Amino acid sequence: MSMLGLPHHDGSARYVPNQAPGLGETVPVFVRTSASVRTVRIRSVADGEPRYGTAVLDREAGGVRWWRAEVEVRNPVTNYRFLVDSGPTGGGQRWLHARGVVGYDVPDNTDFRLVAYDPPPEWVRDAVVYQIFPDRFARSAGAAERDPPDWAIPCDWDRTPVIGRGPETPYQFYGGDLDGITERLDHLDRLGVNTVYLTPIFPARSNHRYDAAGFDRVDPLLGGDAALARLADAVHGRGWRLLGDVTSNHTGDSHRWFVDAISDVGSPEREMYYFDDGGDYESWLGVKSLPKLNWGSAELRRRFHTGPDSVLARWLRPPYGLDGWRVDVANMTGRRGRDAYTTEVAVALRRAVTEARPDGLIVAEHCHDFTGDLDADGWQGTMNYAGFLRPVWSWLRCAEVDLPDFLGVPDGVPRRDGPEVLATMRAFGSLVSWRALAASWLLLGSHDSARIRTVVGDAARQEVAVGLLCTLPGTPMIFAGDELGLTGRNGEDSRTPMPWRRPETWDRGTFDRYRALVALRRSEPELRHGGLRWAYADADSLVFLREGPAGSLLVLARRASAEPVRLVGAASGAGGVEGVNLYGGAPDLHPDPSGALTLPGDGPTFQVWRMS
Amino acid sequence: MSMLGLPHHDGSARYVPNQAPGLGETVPVFVRTSASVRTVRIRSVADGEPRYGTAVLDREAGGVRWWRAEVEVRNPVTNYRFLVDSGPTGGGQRWLHARGVVGYDVPDNTDFRLVAYDPPPEWVRDAVVYQIFPDRFARSAGAAERDPPDWAIPCDWDRTPVIGRGPETPYQFYGGDLDGITERLDHLDRLGVNTVYLTPIFPARSNHRYDAAGFDRVDPLLGGDAALARLADAVHGRGWRLLGDVTSNHTGDSHRWFVDAISDVGSPEREMYYFDDGGDYESWLGVKSLPKLNWGSAELRRRFHTGPDSVLARWLRPPYGLDGWRVDVANMTGRRGRDAYTTEVAVALRRAVTEARPDGLIVAEHCHDFTGDLDADGWQGTMNYAGFLRPVWSWLRCAEVDLPDFLGVPDGVPRRDGPEVLATMRAFGSLVSWRALAASWLLLGSHDSARIRTVVGDAARQEVAVGLLCTLPGTPMIFAGDELGLTGRNGEDSRTPMPWRRPETWDRGTFDRYRALVALRRSEPELRHGGLRWAYADADSLVFLREGPAGSLLVLARRASAEPVRLVGAASGAGGVEGVNLYGGAPDLHPDPSGALTLPGDGPTFQVWRMS
Repeated sequence: MSMLGLPHHDGSARYVPNQAPGLGETVPVFVRTSASVRTVRIRSVADGEPRYGTAVLDREAGGVRWWRAEVEVRNPVTNYRFLVDSGPTGGGQRWLHARGVVGYDVPDNTDFRLVAYDPPPEWVRDAVVYQIFPDRFARSAGAAERDPPDWAIPCDWDRTPVIGRGPETPYQFYGGDLDGITERLDHLDRLGVNTVYLTPIFPARSNHRYDAAGFDRVDPLLGGDAALARLADAVHGRGWRLLGDVTSNHTGDSHRWFVDAISDVGSPEREMYYFDDGGDYESWLGVKSLPKLNWGSAELRRRFHTGPDSVLARWLRPPYGLDGWRVDVANMTGRRGRDAYTTEVAVALRRAVTEARPDGLIVAEHCHDFTGDLDADGWQGTMNYAGFLRPVWSWLRCAEVDLPDFLGVPDGVPRRDGPEVLATMRAFGSLVSWRALAASWLLLGSHDSARIRTVVGDAARQEVAVGLLCTLPGTPMIFAGDELGLTGRNGEDSRTPMPWRRPETWDRGTFDRYRALVALRRSEPELRHGGLRWAYADADSLVFLREGPAGSLLVLARRASAEPVRLVGAASGAGGVEGVNLYGGAPDLHPDPSGALTLPGDGPTFQVWRMS
Repeated sequence: MSMLGLPHHDGSARYVPNQAPGLGETVPVFVRTSASVRTVRIRSVADGEPRYGTAVLDREAGGVRWWRAEVEVRNPVTNYRFLVDSGPTGGGQRWLHARGVVGYDVPDNTDFRLVAYDPPPEWVRDAVVYQIFPDRFARSAGAAERDPPDWAIPCDWDRTPVIGRGPETPYQFYGGDLDGITERLDHLDRLGVNTVYLTPIFPARSNHRYDAAGFDRVDPLLGGDAALARLADAVHGRGWRLLGDVTSNHTGDSHRWFVDAISDVGSPEREMYYFDDGGDYESWLGVKSLPKLNWGSAELRRRFHTGPDSVLARWLRPPYGLDGWRVDVANMTGRRGRDAYTTEVAVALRRAVTEARPDGLIVAEHCHDFTGDLDADGWQGTMNYAGFLRPVWSWLRCAEVDLPDFLGVPDGVPRRDGPEVLATMRAFGSLVSWRALAASWLLLGSHDSARIRTVVGDAARQEVAVGLLCTLPGTPMIFAGDELGLTGRNGEDSRTPMPWRRPETWDRGTFDRYRALVALRRSEPELRHGGLRWAYADADSLVFLREGPAGSLLVLARRASAEPVRLVGAASGAGGVEGVNLYGGAPDLHPDPSGALTLPGDGPTFQVWRMS
């Protein structure tokens, strides 16, 4: 399935020079087509009504036509797509929309989008995020002096979690702390990441701390507020960013708010939760230790984000200065029966972050379909499980591993071929703006999932996975330990303590590949800011271009050896294009006399070339 | 492209026995598969989080498996879809969602939907709507006694509009009136329709009256309030329904509200429109005679729908007793720049209608993508231009006719093949609930478009179009005159006065086919309430089943002669199914020894069989 000849547009600067249009502005947008296209119309939606304009031929070279059209950013989210006509013998009238090119009529929900709300902070596009689960990352000397809490089952750091899944899993306590992280930042520096994301650090009664007992101090088991200030200083001292994790859907049942609410029907906290007449309360998926917050409560809003010392704002200020929040269970926040506060809450929390610090980031956890919740001036991005992790897993997973469920999806992760992987990525990516997709986090695993090494089964396919992580649009997030080739079959099993004292167990080859791919990501502007043009997909191969105003990269991902891929018309849509290998070690690319490029057929492999 | 072997579900009673589930109810839903399917899971969304259940095999016969699953209607709109597993050799894991069956992961927006809001009135599913443009339908004796208004260019009834398109078109005045309609109801009775929809009847300064000069009386040129009462009596006396047309996006500039607003900055009406600091005002697509209403105004809301004698409610009460409203330019209503009141307004207007009469209907005009505006407890249906009219036109249009634009879409209507037509219908139909789709109006043309006879070019293909109109899910709407084979190239040109005095010009064959197809629609419960299972599509053929609890109909639509269609596994998915021809005159269907049915290859043709 070659796609190089198809008309193309995406939301990147090559096609949309104005990346932060204001409401009411009219901005140019560009379309790239082959020379067979005779007319290009633009259809945009203004106040609910479509309007049409005609694109003008801006330039033509080497068989490629660039068309220029205009869109008035009439509404905060303005949709547009293109009607491309190649004449009756060339495919006729087709729509070019965010899902690709189709020869039938489509609704507006897969249109391209211009968003006039304030954009996400610029740094997120340049970030490489490193996710740390504090109980399992590193112990400082101080950690040894602290007694384990009453709920804990103390564990030996150098033995992986004994109970992979069961009622005890939240209580297996390894005792990592924040100073432990501060001491290990050189490891992150060697890896090349520049953003540290900590899962919750508030006091709780579990190792994961998603059952917050309060939001007003850092868990003393982690070293308390002072340890966070030290970590923040160290992270910021390296020019990096530090992100926290906040639960907006629920608290723990030991949270002061909930204790007051359940013990006193007349308390101001009562309305902050969902109690029924019998005194029972709503909780996250029925887990009673996680009572659900009621966002209809003005008192909750005051405490959480509007008050002078709100949960959301206080940790963004010195001496902690978190650079933003990942929001837990954002998909359920504010949703219950008839209650539908989600968008309102997302907007309010985003505002609170931006008011506390204009470059603050707020990213939503959405393990499933996030597409309806972005682009509403709230969550600036999401954790892209659905549109990246799951399709990559389904493409690269090894046959042998047992993945009995995937974040609650039964029947495991099916093995799927390249075209289906591409279809999934497009299905999700086409429902949000380019900027929301680019600000979202790509990930291969997290504290809630199996580890990528276990999913794919070997280092060679892990390299392909990490290659996609570092070269597709979005912000890469690496779960601590993946870079050492750690394994794990599910959330708890994957929360492996970092084997600092067992360097002989590290997969140094994998670490080197992570480091090289992260470095590539950080050195090549097209990987952070470029567009995405799919070139080719078959069962075992995915080929795409990342294109910027100054150049383009060609990426080949293969999960297995197969026939070489011949790209006719090659990267520019014309002949004469050369490719210099930047990653993977394959030969440079030279067009044959017809202008076609041949990509090597061996695999698994991950290759990147700079085209010129 | 045969689809008979695919797993199937839709929102009809055969698959969803509870057609009006309440919030919090758990209801059964059914899936039909072939015997190769081994497991069926249901995935539904509750408070933003997916949950999974396992369907049980309910029954199996003749190679067909029926599976039963349960959905909790947790939210007012609850999404669900199915994960169907046929094993590695049978296609593996596939999603069955409202767009069909796919082998890749999909977002939730194409899920099936259960809606717990109050359903649309039951009668809309049994309705066949007849659209009347009052200036052009019929003149009573009283009409001759009225002087034409000052804005009018009087025209001779028996000459079609002289100016097809131009500045004068709104002023060509033929002088039809409401008593004229009352006198001609026998014609509607012969045709078989049971719902009369009148385009606006309020005073205005144009023949179309979408520029209302007031909402508090019927235009005296139409006979005034008393004539409406007479018409309503006559319509209701036949057991029919009568619908009005209201402009919620704008008024005319001669409306008392606007006159007060523009002449007095301090008037209460000022906030009801959008004035800028210079005194200029927003209008519909820049047409200054149609000033846009500002739904941020509480005063507007009071007058329009919340007040004791509101526009919306008063005409639904005796002595007029309209049975509901078609809402003009619903897609733009409440939308302007940052203002996004559309959903809120739709809900408020729906409530006002329901409060005035519980069986009232409110249907939105949406010439484009309506899918984001239904299922929100507001508009109960739409005029389905995008998901029905346009794909049918593109399939059946004749090559010769010039359709230079289509409701503002440039480059005309392309000629498309059956699979693309089906893809368009599915793309739109899958984004709304079954009940919203079924309550929406199917139409082949209106006062705003070319006439179907002109689009398709001959009576044979018009029959195919009318066949689809009367057999696909949705409420058929017939634009007055189409049943006589009238022609017209665009809105004004199509507003042909009914040729009552020239019976020699009537296409009586076409009238007879309309009558027979309307009768079929009204006699066969599956056509009004049944599900829709697509069986087959090729360039020239569309084949589908309408299935109810008591039986099913097989429908063949062909635009041209081609190879006969062989349906393997036939209508039930098993052999031994016979078909008795109900419409079209083709032979009855008998399975061959392998169980396959062969549908005739001649065309254009439209055929319906009852299967047993």
